Amino acid sequence: MHDRVEVLSDPLVLDGGTLTVEQLHEVAVNGRAVRISETARQRLEASRKLVFELAEQDIPIYGLNRGVGWNKDKVIGKTFFERFNRNLILSHSAGVAPYASVAETRAVMLARLNTLLPGRSGIDPAVAERYAEFLNQGIHPKLPLRGSVGAADITTISHLGLAMIGEGEVEWSGKRLAAGEALRQAGLAPLALGPKDGLAIVSSNALSAGMGALALQECEALLETADLVYALSLEAIRGNVSPLEEGVHLARPYPGQLRSANRVRAALLGSSLWENADTESLQDPLSFRDACQIHGAAYDALGYAKGQLELHLNSSEDNPCVLLEERRIVSCANFDPVTWILGFEMLGSALHHLSKSACYRTIKLGTPAFTGLSRFLTADEERSIGYCTAQKTITSLDAEIRHLINPASTDYYALAGDIEDHAANAPFVVMKTREIIDRLWYIIAIEALHAVQAIDLRGDLKLGRRTAAVYRAIRDEIPFLGADRDISVDIDRAYHVVKEGRLLEGAEA
Amino acid sequence: MHDRVEVLSDPLVLDGGTLTVEQLHEVAVNGRAVRISETARQRLEASRKLVFELAEQDIPIYGLNRGVGWNKDKVIGKTFFERFNRNLILSHSAGVAPYASVAETRAVMLARLNTLLPGRSGIDPAVAERYAEFLNQGIHPKLPLRGSVGAADITTISHLGLAMIGEGEVEWSGKRLAAGEALRQAGLAPLALGPKDGLAIVSSNALSAGMGALALQECEALLETADLVYALSLEAIRGNVSPLEEGVHLARPYPGQLRSANRVRAALLGSSLWENADTESLQDPLSFRDACQIHGAAYDALGYAKGQLELHLNSSEDNPCVLLEERRIVSCANFDPVTWILGFEMLGSALHHLSKSACYRTIKLGTPAFTGLSRFLTADEERSIGYCTAQKTITSLDAEIRHLINPASTDYYALAGDIEDHAANAPFVVMKTREIIDRLWYIIAIEALHAVQAIDLRGDLKLGRRTAAVYRAIRDEIPFLGADRDISVDIDRAYHVVKEGRLLEGAEA
Amino acid sequence: MHDRVEVLSDPLVLDGGTLTVEQLHEVAVNGRAVRISETARQRLEASRKLVFELAEQDIPIYGLNRGVGWNKDKVIGKTFFERFNRNLILSHSAGVAPYASVAETRAVMLARLNTLLPGRSGIDPAVAERYAEFLNQGIHPKLPLRGSVGAADITTISHLGLAMIGEGEVEWSGKRLAAGEALRQAGLAPLALGPKDGLAIVSSNALSAGMGALALQECEALLETADLVYALSLEAIRGNVSPLEEGVHLARPYPGQLRSANRVRAALLGSSLWENADTESLQDPLSFRDACQIHGAAYDALGYAKGQLELHLNSSEDNPCVLLEERRIVSCANFDPVTWILGFEMLGSALHHLSKSACYRTIKLGTPAFTGLSRFLTADEERSIGYCTAQKTITSLDAEIRHLINPASTDYYALAGDIEDHAANAPFVVMKTREIIDRLWYIIAIEALHAVQAIDLRGDLKLGRRTAAVYRAIRDEIPFLGADRDISVDIDRAYHVVKEGRLLEGAEA
Amino acid sequence: MHDRVEVLSDPLVLDGGTLTVEQLHEVAVNGRAVRISETARQRLEASRKLVFELAEQDIPIYGLNRGVGWNKDKVIGKTFFERFNRNLILSHSAGVAPYASVAETRAVMLARLNTLLPGRSGIDPAVAERYAEFLNQGIHPKLPLRGSVGAADITTISHLGLAMIGEGEVEWSGKRLAAGEALRQAGLAPLALGPKDGLAIVSSNALSAGMGALALQECEALLETADLVYALSLEAIRGNVSPLEEGVHLARPYPGQLRSANRVRAALLGSSLWENADTESLQDPLSFRDACQIHGAAYDALGYAKGQLELHLNSSEDNPCVLLEERRIVSCANFDPVTWILGFEMLGSALHHLSKSACYRTIKLGTPAFTGLSRFLTADEERSIGYCTAQKTITSLDAEIRHLINPASTDYYALAGDIEDHAANAPFVVMKTREIIDRLWYIIAIEALHAVQAIDLRGDLKLGRRTAAVYRAIRDEIPFLGADRDISVDIDRAYHVVKEGRLLEGAEA
Repeated sequence: MHDRVEVLSDPLVLDGGTLTVEQLHEVAVNGRAVRISETARQRLEASRKLVFELAEQDIPIYGLNRGVGWNKDKVIGKTFFERFNRNLILSHSAGVAPYASVAETRAVMLARLNTLLPGRSGIDPAVAERYAEFLNQGIHPKLPLRGSVGAADITTISHLGLAMIGEGEVEWSGKRLAAGEALRQAGLAPLALGPKDGLAIVSSNALSAGMGALALQECEALLETADLVYALSLEAIRGNVSPLEEGVHLARPYPGQLRSANRVRAALLGSSLWENADTESLQDPLSFRDACQIHGAAYDALGYAKGQLELHLNSSEDNPCVLLEERRIVSCANFDPVTWILGFEMLGSALHHLSKSACYRTIKLGTPAFTGLSRFLTADEERSIGYCTAQKTITSLDAEIRHLINPASTDYYALAGDIEDHAANAPFVVMKTREIIDRLWYIIAIEALHAVQAIDLRGDLKLGRRTAAVYRAIRDEIPFLGADRDISVDIDRAYHVVKEGRLLEGAEA
Repeated sequence: MHDRVEVLSDPLVLDGGTLTVEQLHEVAVNGRAVRISETARQRLEASRKLVFELAEQDIPIYGLNRGVGWNKDKVIGKTFFERFNRNLILSHSAGVAPYASVAETRAVMLARLNTLLPGRSGIDPAVAERYAEFLNQGIHPKLPLRGSVGAADITTISHLGLAMIGEGEVEWSGKRLAAGEALRQAGLAPLALGPKDGLAIVSSNALSAGMGALALQECEALLETADLVYALSLEAIRGNVSPLEEGVHLARPYPGQLRSANRVRAALLGSSLWENADTESLQDPLSFRDACQIHGAAYDALGYAKGQLELHLNSSEDNPCVLLEERRIVSCANFDPVTWILGFEMLGSALHHLSKSACYRTIKLGTPAFTGLSRFLTADEERSIGYCTAQKTITSLDAEIRHLINPASTDYYALAGDIEDHAANAPFVVMKTREIIDRLWYIIAIEALHAVQAIDLRGDLKLGRRTAAVYRAIRDEIPFLGADRDISVDIDRAYHVVKEGRLLEGAEA
Repeated sequence: MHDRVEVLSDPLVLDGGTLTVEQLHEVAVNGRAVRISETARQRLEASRKLVFELAEQDIPIYGLNRGVGWNKDKVIGKTFFERFNRNLILSHSAGVAPYASVAETRAVMLARLNTLLPGRSGIDPAVAERYAEFLNQGIHPKLPLRGSVGAADITTISHLGLAMIGEGEVEWSGKRLAAGEALRQAGLAPLALGPKDGLAIVSSNALSAGMGALALQECEALLETADLVYALSLEAIRGNVSPLEEGVHLARPYPGQLRSANRVRAALLGSSLWENADTESLQDPLSFRDACQIHGAAYDALGYAKGQLELHLNSSEDNPCVLLEERRIVSCANFDPVTWILGFEMLGSALHHLSKSACYRTIKLGTPAFTGLSRFLTADEERSIGYCTAQKTITSLDAEIRHLINPASTDYYALAGDIEDHAANAPFVVMKTREIIDRLWYIIAIEALHAVQAIDLRGDLKLGRRTAAVYRAIRDEIPFLGADRDISVDIDRAYHVVKEGRLLEGAEA
Repeated sequence: MHDRVEVLSDPLVLDGGTLTVEQLHEVAVNGRAVRISETARQRLEASRKLVFELAEQDIPIYGLNRGVGWNKDKVIGKTFFERFNRNLILSHSAGVAPYASVAETRAVMLARLNTLLPGRSGIDPAVAERYAEFLNQGIHPKLPLRGSVGAADITTISHLGLAMIGEGEVEWSGKRLAAGEALRQAGLAPLALGPKDGLAIVSSNALSAGMGALALQECEALLETADLVYALSLEAIRGNVSPLEEGVHLARPYPGQLRSANRVRAALLGSSLWENADTESLQDPLSFRDACQIHGAAYDALGYAKGQLELHLNSSEDNPCVLLEERRIVSCANFDPVTWILGFEMLGSALHHLSKSACYRTIKLGTPAFTGLSRFLTADEERSIGYCTAQKTITSLDAEIRHLINPASTDYYALAGDIEDHAANAPFVVMKTREIIDRLWYIIAIEALHAVQAIDLRGDLKLGRRTAAVYRAIRDEIPFLGADRDISVDIDRAYHVVKEGRLLEGAEA
């Protein structure tokens, strides 16, 4: 993640109902500005008005004229509204290190802003606007990433509220400074929080959802990269292309499988592999034959996670829930992220299949019985050892992925007088997913190093249209391994090539 | 699972493209007969013909004129076809105990039969017909449940092939007998296997898919039962019904959440809970407020698993794959079950949320601070202890569920000369899912015991239309706990009431 | 486990301080009788007397004149002692299926009896004596294995108390009958429980400890068998014996490693492997070179688990704890089994290393590149397929072991008004360990099948003194695989040979 | 870990047989210098001489005149010794980020140096000396922490070898510079590696063992701190001290339990808790009653891990192994770290029990029903919310610990032509253990914050001798929570107090 983001004009208009993972990525990572749609603003105002009316009638409303959590039985008098809401923000700030990057902070602010826009929180529209001001002026509160049991990232996103009222620290134009000072310089007054504002700020899964959206966007790039590297490996081993044929995949038409197979075939267009298909191996090792099914399973899992998360990003997650139409505010549990968090857990397992498959392909690329080439792809069997220990690097990272896929969403306690007896560890599950993705970039990078080395040793292949570009993206940065050198340097470079999207961009250009 | 199934007439027509989980359950558990559709039969014949034509041309075809697995390099001569295929069945029979019940065996046979019908295996139509004969005559081969690494349940479903050629044992009309003897009595000749038949018999995920379909059907009944028991518990605690309101759920319209909320509201129709909603608790404990979201997540996960599995049941899983249109047979990996197996893993985690939530509700039903009733719902605080230790029973079973949700699909080896370097442990994942479901029946049963006891102690509740039926379904078998007695007897009875569907049937009648 | 056990004379004298896992196995499985030592009996009596004296002084004592668990605040009057204790047994009986075998029930009863003998429970000596009467007369209460969160197996071992007071069912002389009837026939009066007796019966980890002792005894046999099968495999592959040398192991003197290496060298005494050590492979695959280190790690883990469990079996686990010397009864938590349960969890992981290693050896025994023999050890490469799919059988069972080693001891809830906020799932952890061991018997059996087949194919080996006996133990029951046959039959036979100890007995004779 | 370490005089004399975890910590963290004992040096020389003699006789020796790993079949000629060994170091350098701190690097270098001193590697004594030179001159190679499958941390500790031959980077006196430059400035010549030197450098578990020793030393401080914080919490809740009595623990004399109970009693010496023991709660919640048993289990597990690791640190881990006495070099597998790694896995689970127990205590400290104090320990129930959300902070970190305890040691692949078919993921397991410990510092810190707040609210307690010092250590840095403030600031401070040892030092002074 970048440590500084330039805010760009051409704002994304937010209406609380149409935000995509891709748009969120744009705002967070590329610094796009945002604007609240007129309809959404009207909903916010109508909702706020209703809250005040109901408060006048002395109907007990959680977090408005009553305390929150276990303190739901405590009456909050009108004169105490501001102090109560300020105290709520202060006392709920209990997150711990590490802290979000600038892009991550933006993702989280946007994720919260959009779920306010259906107008079911009753928040002061000025508070909602503050998220947009922060995003557009590049004011990024210091946001701890840990401490939330998610359902609802109360302990962490309260730190956004801190900055809004002029407490705590923020990043602004690449510098860390006191929030109060940043607000002053930016010409923003510290917010005075009104009824229910504290609760509306903290009672959201924005940390998990914002970080989760970034993870899914990165995962999509990873899968698309993996398709390309697999295609290159298939050339490196002179593999049989018949398992890629469209007819095969139409016989079992999973959406992900079809997508992967289409991509791999397109990448290999023009490759000499198609010429001599008949003379090739009757049945390649599964890791070379089964990749579109495995990548397909990951695309399917990604599709599920993304669908569930985008529904969340465009729904209300507030409790209580303002039913504007019925002019009521009712208690609920719409802050529960379990259904989309389960999608993330499933995605992790899918990625582990992809990881093991990439590891097995890489190991085979170093094995003469499968390649007809030298052991460990050394360029000189007498004088050089080649890629002998990179097998350990990838499989040790794969073991970490195996560990990361263990589930975590159900490991919660009953808290707060046993009232809060459900949670989902949403931030941790999202964080795990991102850790898995990061390790996979290394594994795919090392697979790519092996594939280009094998192709160089082979010498006589005509690469596919896109695999040729993939080959160049690697070889532009890492030369042929002619004699032994410090492999860790090559690995680090290749990792950056794939993770920063250069391989994907090169191929799809 | 029943140990004996009567085969019924009114056969289900199978066409290889429209089989549902529910239909599979009917054939397996209720003993419905089957018939292969005419179109499907024609496809089988055309496909078989093509196989022979290609074999004549001496094109190497895996499992036909070449060996399977690592033996793909071995040429199989025509005179050796029968012996080779017989040997294949024998040598691949390597499953271990336990063995499938009759209903399970039927599920597995049907799951295989239907994936043959797209006509991509090239199997002898008579072999395909044999599955139907077994199903319709009630001949059920002895089928070991363990030993397959799934992708492809080779080691276990080969035992179906054993019976087809008159080897091994079968169940017939409630008796175990030698397969050869059963065939004779049934007027069936042992099959002589032709080219590719052995491979077509073993190279399928039918064990996982058949058992998986049974699991999903049972899971759906479990979720529907859980909705009802939750509704009863809400009455037992005089809970706040506002979190159930339609408006709340339309604000976050996940399909599962909507389904659960609709069901719970319908169950509570007419309940006195709706009358005094305003005077009730502002925010019930989450386990009482969040159930539709949690059950909804489980319905969503079930929906994904079922969608992916039904696509499998109606696709080709054969390798090589007969491309009839192109008159070719090509190598592939359509036997890979990963994408639907991941759905099962996700479903397991979803069920654990449901389990913990039921446990927390049950614990609270024994806690005066939440109920206003006696400790452990004893009928006599001086003379009786009540449901004190059932809290341990449910949470110990919940701990087993916590263990069962740990993932297993990626723990495989590279086998057979390192060629088979991907698998999914599909049978084990399915078995885990069934184990989770079984433990949940206990937990839900014990929640129901608590709820009816609390309702009896409370005395003055008007139950909902369906919750009243739920109440009766329990109390018909387990009397009020007026004095201490052996609780394990009550638990066992309640478990059978819910697991055998009596509670659900009673309520939905 | 046997379903019927003959009780033998020559009773084991129990003093509460010297019971070993081996002795427990003798009483449980071989049916040895027991006798309470005179010193122990005196302690029981002195302790009981103290309890009555303290009760007279109206000092509140948990479980005596006060309730148990959350009911610790309830006063139990003297006239209510018997009914309270009877109710306690009834209401705490909340276990669920499956049920213990006869040998298991004996193990559990003995495990409880011995921890009473330090005289810290204050139990009526007649109740303690009842365990001995049941063991010696072969009266075996129906004992459910699940439902306890362990710490303290309250919900399950209460079923032993049921039988003592004439409730529930028992096994006697191979028949199931009502406990009351069995007592009558055996000439025993139903017990009338006095103060604290109910608590003393249920407040113990006897289920976990008794089952755990059986597991450790079986595990020891497993490890010793694994040493022998490994030795045979080393011959089968004509492996290098230099890694077995004593000097190597003295250079890293872990007790387990030394034990395994000594055993393997002894097994290979006289083998032709020692003759041509120099000409053999410089470095065998690790699975063939590293076995003594891996088995050693398992012996070390077993040593830890056994040491911790035996300390438990010979300590007091009662709460409150009678401090006879100080003439007081104090509250405590000596029923916490965590320290020895952690040993079982560690042992599970150790066994998985052993399992994977056995799998890798077996796979290599089917791989010509490592053996110089035929693929899958077929006797006829043209006509027979050999042990091709047994690789799947072992690795699928290994995947189950991988799943079983996931930890479970920390997955507990706060129960009973949040007072019982620690547990260890001891029965489940022990059960998992036994499941691991059972799967390993299959894996070792299949390794042995491969080894003897390779040795037969090789033909010219002179086996070691004990490995020759191992070879015979297998070949006595499973003939050479000359032509393909149903492998599952061979596997089942070999499993019984190793699990029932015939291989070990044969070799050590 | 410190980023810079001053090297101190008074060198630790190393003999390869007596190194303790505590001494290793001193050298690594406190910068103590080292010296190789005279006896050890002689062993190194004798061993080196033997290696040359055997090489002269043309006996094939792994890693000397033959390649390593899969290349064991390649002959290494004498003229190629230096280049081969240099290539080995280069090609084996395949570690990835993150990188070791200075203290960690020192720990790793020492861990390797000491296992060379038994003289079983045949390494050039000058290479062994180089570790000492680096330690004593403060030259700290850049050492990646990931990439090793451990058995043997080949891919990572090769980076130490890089620096020895003048390649790669090092830290020296707080600066990063090229290794060649550092050597020049320090007056050290780049090493010319002779036969077997490359293998001797890489073939060690020094990364895991060195990091592991630091982890165990920190764990011991953690457990000792946890005893003290528990003692303070017991005062905060006015708990019953009878479960601490010596008699209770002598009735079940586990070493760890005795140690913890002794420490807690000593901490509470003079506390007013002892005065009114009789009037206190009959049975506190288990988290307050069971702590010595739980901490004891952790001490027991720590004892096992430490014993097994110290044996490793003082044994040979080299393959092949020089048997000086027999004048031979033999193949072996003494590099297998499984037995001590299993101890680390067990320790992780033990720490999770400690963590959950601390969480439950902390939650109860915020619960009036258990304390008789205000909800969330607020100083003003009307105006302030208090420690409401810190419950989420600790339980979310506890969920991470729950995830970290999942085992990892068996998740390895067969590598390098399937020869390397065992590993233990030792570095990752050690890293997990350190992550668990770090999270526990947070949890204990937050428990301490609650305890001191409760004690302040209570007002009238006379603290124990050491608990008074614990109280001061916290209150010296974090004032009474009189009004709501940003809790994350307090948490961060308290975390540093406990992690940096100030609480422990304060109390034990």
